[in-house]
Amino acid sequence: MNYAVMMAGGAGTRFWPLSRQTLPKQLLPIGDDQTLLARAIGRVAPLAPAARVLIVTGEAIAAPIAAAFPEVPAANIIAEPLRRNTAPCAAVAAKILLDRDPDAVMALLPADHVIRKEDELRTLLAAAFAVAARSDELLTLGVKPQYPETGYGYIETGDPLDEENSRPYFRVAAFHEKPDAATAQHFLDSGRFLWNAGIFVFRASVFLRAVAAAMPDLAAAVAEIDGCAPPEKIGAALARLYPALAPTSIDHGVMEKVRNILVFPADIGWSDVGSWTALRELHPADPHGNVGQGDFLALDGGENTFYAQGGVAVAVGVEGLIIVHTPDATLVARRDDAQGVKRVFEEFERRGWKKYL
Amino acid sequence: MNYAVMMAGGAGTRFWPLSRQTLPKQLLPIGDDQTLLARAIGRVAPLAPAARVLIVTGEAIAAPIAAAFPEVPAANIIAEPLRRNTAPCAAVAAKILLDRDPDAVMALLPADHVIRKEDELRTLLAAAFAVAARSDELLTLGVKPQYPETGYGYIETGDPLDEENSRPYFRVAAFHEKPDAATAQHFLDSGRFLWNAGIFVFRASVFLRAVAAAMPDLAAAVAEIDGCAPPEKIGAALARLYPALAPTSIDHGVMEKVRNILVFPADIGWSDVGSWTALRELHPADPHGNVGQGDFLALDGGENTFYAQGGVAVAVGVEGLIIVHTPDATLVARRDDAQGVKRVFEEFERRGWKKYL
Repeated sequence: MNYAVMMAGGAGTRFWPLSRQTLPKQLLPIGDDQTLLARAIGRVAPLAPAARVLIVTGEAIAAPIAAAFPEVPAANIIAEPLRRNTAPCAAVAAKILLDRDPDAVMALLPADHVIRKEDELRTLLAAAFAVAARSDELLTLGVKPQYPETGYGYIETGDPLDEENSRPYFRVAAFHEKPDAATAQHFLDSGRFLWNAGIFVFRASVFLRAVAAAMPDLAAAVAEIDGCAPPEKIGAALARLYPALAPTSIDHGVMEKVRNILVFPADIGWSDVGSWTALRELHPADPHGNVGQGDFLALDGGENTFYAQGGVAVAVGVEGLIIVHTPDATLVARRDDAQGVKRVFEEFERRGWKKYL
Repeated sequence: MNYAVMMAGGAGTRFWPLSRQTLPKQLLPIGDDQTLLARAIGRVAPLAPAARVLIVTGEAIAAPIAAAFPEVPAANIIAEPLRRNTAPCAAVAAKILLDRDPDAVMALLPADHVIRKEDELRTLLAAAFAVAARSDELLTLGVKPQYPETGYGYIETGDPLDEENSRPYFRVAAFHEKPDAATAQHFLDSGRFLWNAGIFVFRASVFLRAVAAAMPDLAAAVAEIDGCAPPEKIGAALARLYPALAPTSIDHGVMEKVRNILVFPADIGWSDVGSWTALRELHPADPHGNVGQGDFLALDGGENTFYAQGGVAVAVGVEGLIIVHTPDATLVARRDDAQGVKRVFEEFERRGWKKYL
C-alpha cells in the first residue's frame, strides 16, 4: 500500500511573529487559506488518504496537530522528543510502516512547501510509487530550477532510464550541497541539475536497507521500535533512543552514500516557503510591486511584502520592506535582511520577552 | 471659585491606529502611562479639584469619558452634538459655569497636550486665576518658543505690566496665525513672540462679554442654555443650538477681536502631541536615535519612532520610520510623511474597512 509521511517538525523561527514556538509554519496559512500541512495532506489524498498518512512532528506541537487533523489516526501522529533532522525522522517512519505493512511504499513529503501544480505532483508521485513498488530503487522528485538559487541542494541527473505515467526518470549521478553562485549558474546552464525538494518515494524495506548500509547506528536504533505497539510505547522508545542519535539529514546521511536512486524531473510550481520573502512568489503583485496576504494597504510606496493576521497592516511611503502584523506583534524588516529576524530571538531572550516567542 | 474646563473633543485621526473614532488621543497614554486627559485633570487638581472640572467632549466619547473619570460629576461632562471648534465649546462652558457660580473663574485647557513642568504650570495658572479674579482681563499662557515652528499660532507681547506669583505678564499686542518659515524665524529672533498653546484663564462673565462683542450670534445661542438644568436638558439645548453655529476657533472668533488680553510667558515643557512625530520629544532616544513607547526593539537601524500597545513592535534594518502596533492594526510610515496617515482613512472607507477606523 501507498503511504504519505509528512515531515512536520521545525520551529519556524523565520516566520516570526506569525510562527511561534507552538505554531510552526506548517500550521500557518501561507499563500492560501489553508495551513501548509492541511494543504500537503489534501493534495496527496487521492494517492494516500488520511488513514494512510503518517505525521512526524515535535512533541510541543503534536497535540495541536492531532486536534487539527482528526481524520489522521492517532497512532499515525509520531512525536519526536528531540530534533534530529530528517534521516532519523524518515527511518522511524519507515520502521513503523514496515511493521504494519511489509509492502509499504512511502512518500516522504516536507509539510512546509507550496506546490501550485498539484495534478502534476500527483502524476509524478503515482509514477514514483509504481516504480518503487516494483524495484529496489529509491525515488526522488527533482524540481526543474528556475534560476541559480544558492540556498538549495541540487540533484545531478545521470543516464535517462525510462518513463512512467509518460514522465521520464533518470538515474541520480550525485547529490550536491548548496552551491556558490558560480556553481549554481553552471548547474542551471548545464540543464542536468535539479533542485532537491526533499521529496522521496521508496519501499520502507528498501529505505531501511539503505539506512543499514549508510547509517548503521540509526538502523540499529530504529530496529528497537515496534511500529505496531500503542503510541505511548512508541513514544517511550523514541524518548529512549533519540538522545543518542546524531542530527543528520536524509540527503547527507543516506542519499549521498547509496547508488540506487532514481529521479523524476518535476515541474510542479514548487516553492520552499523558507522565509517572508517567499511570500512574493505566492501572491500577485499590485502595480507598485506590493504583495501580501490578509488585509493590507500600501500608499505612496512599493515593493513591500505584507502578511496581516487578525488585523490590518498599513504602509505609507515606504519601499522594499517586509511588514507583518499579528495581534501581539509587529515585524518590520528590510526585504534583504529577512534573516536578521533570527537575531530578534536572542534579544527577546535577553529582555525576558518569552511571551512573544 | 476656580474651575478647569477640559476641551476633550477631537477625532484623533492623526494617531491612528492607536486612536480610533471612539478612542481619541486624549484617552490615550502618550508619553506617560496615564491617558492625556487623566494627566490634564490630575495636574490642575491642586487648583481645581475634580468636582470643579468641566469636560467638554463629543457625544461618541462622552460615555467612556464619564466611566473613566467617576470623580468628575456627571453634570460636568458636556457632550457637544457636533464639532464646532473651540469658540462654541468655551462659550457653552462659560455660560454653564456662570449660571452655577456668578464668580466662576475658569481655565480653558486643551486635554491633548503634554506638559512636563507641571509645578510651573500650576504657578502660572494660579497667577492667572488671581489676576482674572480681580480684573476684567482675559488671561492666556504663551509658551516660550524653542525653534521657528510654522505649525503653531503665535502671541505677540506688548507692554510688560506687572508680576503675579513672581511671574511677569504682558498685554497682548496681537494674535498671529501660523506663519511661514521666514516669519517664524523673525518671530523667534525678536524675542517678543510666544507660541499660542490654547490655554486661557478668565472669569466666565468677562469672557461672555467678549463673546457678545465679537460673536453676537454665539452669545445669543449660549444665552438660551440654562447651566443649572439637568444634563439631559442641557444636551437637548445643545442639540437644538449647535447646527446653526459656525465652526470657529476661540483665537480667531474672540481673541483676535478684543483688546483686554494679558499673557504670561510660560516655560512649562509644553508639547502639542499633534502626531506620531511628537513622540520623539516625549521619550529618550537610544544611541541610534530610536525612540518609543511600549515594548519595542530596533536592530541594525535607527531614527525610528515606535508605539506598541498590546504587543511588541520589532524593526530590523530600517531607518526613519514610524512604527505603531495595536492588536488589530499596524502602521508603518516614513517619519516625514506622518500626515499621509489621513489618506489611509479615505482608502479604508472605499474598501469598507470601517472596523479598523
